[in-house]
Amino acid sequence: MPDRDLQYLAELSAQLRVDSVRAAAEAGSGHPTSSMSAADLMAVLFACHLHYDFDNPGNPANDHLIFSKGHASPLLYSLYKAAGVISDEELLSFRRRGSRLEGHPTPRLPWVDVATGSLGQGLPVGVGVAMAGRLERLPYRVWVLCGDSELAEGSIWEAAEHAGSEGLANLTAIVDVNRLGQRGPTRHGWDTGAYARRFGAFGWHTIEIDGHDPGQIDFALSDARNTRRRPTVILAKTRKGEGVLEVENREGAHGKALKDPGKAVQELGGPRSVRVEVHRPEVDAAPFRFSGNGMKLPSYPVGERVATRTAYGAALAALGAARGDVVALDGEVADSTKTETFGKEHPERFFEMYIAEQQLVAAAVGMQVRGWKPYAATFAAFLTRAHDFIRMAGVSRADIRLVGSHAGVAIGEDGPSQMGLEDLAMMRTVHGSTVLYPCDANQTAALIAEMADLEGVSYLRTTRGDTPVIYQPGERFTVGGSRVLQHTPGDRATIVAAGVTVHEALAAADDLQAEGVPVGVIDLYSIKPVDTAVLVEAATTTGNLITVEDHRVEGGLGDAVMDAVSELGPRVVKLAVTDLPGSATPQEQLADARIDRHAIIDAVKRLL
Amino acid sequence: MPDRDLQYLAELSAQLRVDSVRAAAEAGSGHPTSSMSAADLMAVLFACHLHYDFDNPGNPANDHLIFSKGHASPLLYSLYKAAGVISDEELLSFRRRGSRLEGHPTPRLPWVDVATGSLGQGLPVGVGVAMAGRLERLPYRVWVLCGDSELAEGSIWEAAEHAGSEGLANLTAIVDVNRLGQRGPTRHGWDTGAYARRFGAFGWHTIEIDGHDPGQIDFALSDARNTRRRPTVILAKTRKGEGVLEVENREGAHGKALKDPGKAVQELGGPRSVRVEVHRPEVDAAPFRFSGNGMKLPSYPVGERVATRTAYGAALAALGAARGDVVALDGEVADSTKTETFGKEHPERFFEMYIAEQQLVAAAVGMQVRGWKPYAATFAAFLTRAHDFIRMAGVSRADIRLVGSHAGVAIGEDGPSQMGLEDLAMMRTVHGSTVLYPCDANQTAALIAEMADLEGVSYLRTTRGDTPVIYQPGERFTVGGSRVLQHTPGDRATIVAAGVTVHEALAAADDLQAEGVPVGVIDLYSIKPVDTAVLVEAATTTGNLITVEDHRVEGGLGDAVMDAVSELGPRVVKLAVTDLPGSATPQEQLADARIDRHAIIDAVKRLL
Repeated sequence: MPDRDLQYLAELSAQLRVDSVRAAAEAGSGHPTSSMSAADLMAVLFACHLHYDFDNPGNPANDHLIFSKGHASPLLYSLYKAAGVISDEELLSFRRRGSRLEGHPTPRLPWVDVATGSLGQGLPVGVGVAMAGRLERLPYRVWVLCGDSELAEGSIWEAAEHAGSEGLANLTAIVDVNRLGQRGPTRHGWDTGAYARRFGAFGWHTIEIDGHDPGQIDFALSDARNTRRRPTVILAKTRKGEGVLEVENREGAHGKALKDPGKAVQELGGPRSVRVEVHRPEVDAAPFRFSGNGMKLPSYPVGERVATRTAYGAALAALGAARGDVVALDGEVADSTKTETFGKEHPERFFEMYIAEQQLVAAAVGMQVRGWKPYAATFAAFLTRAHDFIRMAGVSRADIRLVGSHAGVAIGEDGPSQMGLEDLAMMRTVHGSTVLYPCDANQTAALIAEMADLEGVSYLRTTRGDTPVIYQPGERFTVGGSRVLQHTPGDRATIVAAGVTVHEALAAADDLQAEGVPVGVIDLYSIKPVDTAVLVEAATTTGNLITVEDHRVEGGLGDAVMDAVSELGPRVVKLAVTDLPGSATPQEQLADARIDRHAIIDAVKRLL
Repeated sequence: MPDRDLQYLAELSAQLRVDSVRAAAEAGSGHPTSSMSAADLMAVLFACHLHYDFDNPGNPANDHLIFSKGHASPLLYSLYKAAGVISDEELLSFRRRGSRLEGHPTPRLPWVDVATGSLGQGLPVGVGVAMAGRLERLPYRVWVLCGDSELAEGSIWEAAEHAGSEGLANLTAIVDVNRLGQRGPTRHGWDTGAYARRFGAFGWHTIEIDGHDPGQIDFALSDARNTRRRPTVILAKTRKGEGVLEVENREGAHGKALKDPGKAVQELGGPRSVRVEVHRPEVDAAPFRFSGNGMKLPSYPVGERVATRTAYGAALAALGAARGDVVALDGEVADSTKTETFGKEHPERFFEMYIAEQQLVAAAVGMQVRGWKPYAATFAAFLTRAHDFIRMAGVSRADIRLVGSHAGVAIGEDGPSQMGLEDLAMMRTVHGSTVLYPCDANQTAALIAEMADLEGVSYLRTTRGDTPVIYQPGERFTVGGSRVLQHTPGDRATIVAAGVTVHEALAAADDLQAEGVPVGVIDLYSIKPVDTAVLVEAATTTGNLITVEDHRVEGGLGDAVMDAVSELGPRVVKLAVTDLPGSATPQEQLADARIDRHAIIDAVKRLL
């Protein structure tokens, strides 16, 4: 590398440090020291290796840069300033109310793919972006800046396993090994060999360098770009707070503005106005998309018994035939969730993620960055494994679709470890989420199709056992809607159910009718958003609601109903799972949990 | 190994296979083939290496055996039958309603430490049991039977990192590498070297063997027992369904009873009545416990401003001084959660788990198996990372205490990735859980002490910023209680709050009083169980409730209140976080989320 270039890179790095210090100083908080350790790494990346069209963040050929160590946001924003896309004034709005420059990066900024800040997530999401690049035959590279502390997260090793096994050579992890975590030294300190052995064992190309030497950084980034058939990890030994004596390589300097920022800026050579010209992508590239040919959803005759999970698989396969942008992922249970139906018809768009639910969800998030429409499925119970990833997908405003099978005690003999009993509560709390829970096969097929164009995180819950088809094929079910299945002006109460309990509610209503107690029945297949108008109508006319759900009593359908009618003050009885189930047949489980037809009848009688 | 012994082991293994086939056949479901692959491994372990006093499962010197592949429960129950602790009749009750022999093992059986069935959890929990053994200076060993599929879970590698780095030589993982997952071949098939490289890189002693050769198994188990300073992993190449042609090493034979169990039993040589005499522990050992010397909780003068996280740290340190059985764990954020106060005073009982929240919770679960009282802390937001472990801790009836700091939008500038906004919903759904959310330092200290003897999973939520002390030092706060902070007979509404919003509610009530609108204020510090009596009283007298919480609108305090009063039908207005926050100061965040004093006043006026 010529001296001229070295001098330029030194100036750029110094400016990135200065601006990181200034932004945090102005905010009175933030992570300048974690930014300073990685400044040289990012300076060389931006000046020499990144290919990105800042005038067109949507250019399909753009590289992707993910700050897995999201707390180094001052560095990222300083890079944007050096690239000329934010002003110095905006830089100094860091962490202020209303500013796009939040404490941790989010896609409110057009150059940020996904929100980070929960450690260990950027690399698994990067795996998903790299998978998309391979699928759409684009030459872009995915660069992920990781901290060393976050390598303790299991999700990093799910990513290492998937990327290593799949040979994702378009993925590079750059690890800023600055030795210091939040509260003290990391487990391995500056022992980059410890990390190299681990990544190497998972099939990665590993490079250990001095992360403050531009020549070594340049070589490593070139080497990563030239490596075939394997992802690369660059393990860069750095010093936290590099360049400022007050904080350099010192404990206790994490996550706070410097005490004397003025002196620090001086020590770094003062403010500069260095610009970085990031290479534009070398080629114009159009993403490959599969072709589609007209939607033909599966249809089931009324009265037939079909599991909603079966209908999900068939509907997804049909959707895949109709639309070239749909992809499916599964957590090594595709024969149970029935994603296998899609996998058999569209093998090139089916991704086996094995038993690694965090990477399963992260891959979906990564693929939607590139405009794919991912559906990711596993048992509803095991989606809890990915809760933090789903939460962050909400913060990322990511458009992903999750399907959880084997919901509720209705699975029967397998017992509580396999039962999704907390999933509705978990999914309802996700920002901007949609939560659907169909009761029959035709409804499932219709909702799976509806999900394709939903924004945000959407979730559909399926049932293991067969349930009777009650809706005609082709009926439309809108998100936020419901179905009034039984209603007479003389209704003394209204039963609100979804999924398996719809069938219990219908049976209970029949028995009650025979005893001279007419009750209404609502199929609340859209748990979020919920059909407030219909619920308010029911609450107003009968004044008595019974909710019944195969889910824990907290946070599910019953709470959604109460929330919708809370300001009216109807009487509500919630039937839901309150005890810990064991093994039993599905019908025994429903009876033991007091959510079957008999329990509903008892509840109605008690309420009246 | 003498021929006589080999003959005996062959008979025992055959019986374990026969009984696994019979139990699944009788149930009509279950996992016989996953049991048959590991039968030789477990036969040799039980006959030659395990030290366990079946007459006294509480013997502190007992080894611990955890079936991380919990679906191999037919094998585990067949071992119990061979050991003489369950009858053949009970074996055949497998998966029936009311039977202790559930689809996946749970501690309803006295020899089972923890529930398994969600893969990738047994090894991290085993790490916790091994940590306890080292702490209490007991010679027991921890044996964990893993499947090969579950090695894709990141939690396995969190465990590998912790055990390898800590040199937990008392821990042995036995991996049943049967090549076949649920829906097809695993990623690495029979390439035990792939797994050996990975575990080796994490510092484990690795042994690769033929898992059907008793001599090799015996050697490997001996080698594991004799290995110092490193945990051992035995990578055993096996065949799924070994011994029965119909299913042996065949795809599509996972998780179902055999089609022709009679023929299979014949093929395995027919039923036998082999007994296994498991060695009792060689020594009588008493667990080491630290001494305690009288409780002196920290106390704070009313009016002082103290963060509840600070009070948590000080109270936990005081509790540690008073009780020798309290241990603390943290996820590399002890300076933020304030667990560091305990760590400084009781370094030998403080465990740094680094940024690995699944292993953090699993270690707590493992340590409580041996009677320790673990408190595990991280940011409330990051506990979502361990959701599935917390869920399974509930199924395990484990007594663990979790503390989540940095709750809510009140953290301020750091932004949504760091805000615990879903934790109350998540924790409320856990079976048998307790959920606490104190508003001042003295209340926090009291509740931290209360938690020590609670059964099940308990959770306490702390706040980052300082809040005024409103309770006298030494006041008692019972689980399931509340405090009526303001109440007059003329109250027109009642505000129900907890944590930071208590202070907003008190300010709002003052302002409303000045305007001639008296309202009551309840501090609902116990979110689960909830003080139904007080809430019903408030609902009955004022008929108008306003709930206000720094949490998403779904599944938190508001839903807990509505659940308690649902059958009475009061009008309830819920104030909670509904939008996605960005960066802002704490007070700006409360205002923007519409949960500050002004929003409360508006809500009261709107309701009246």
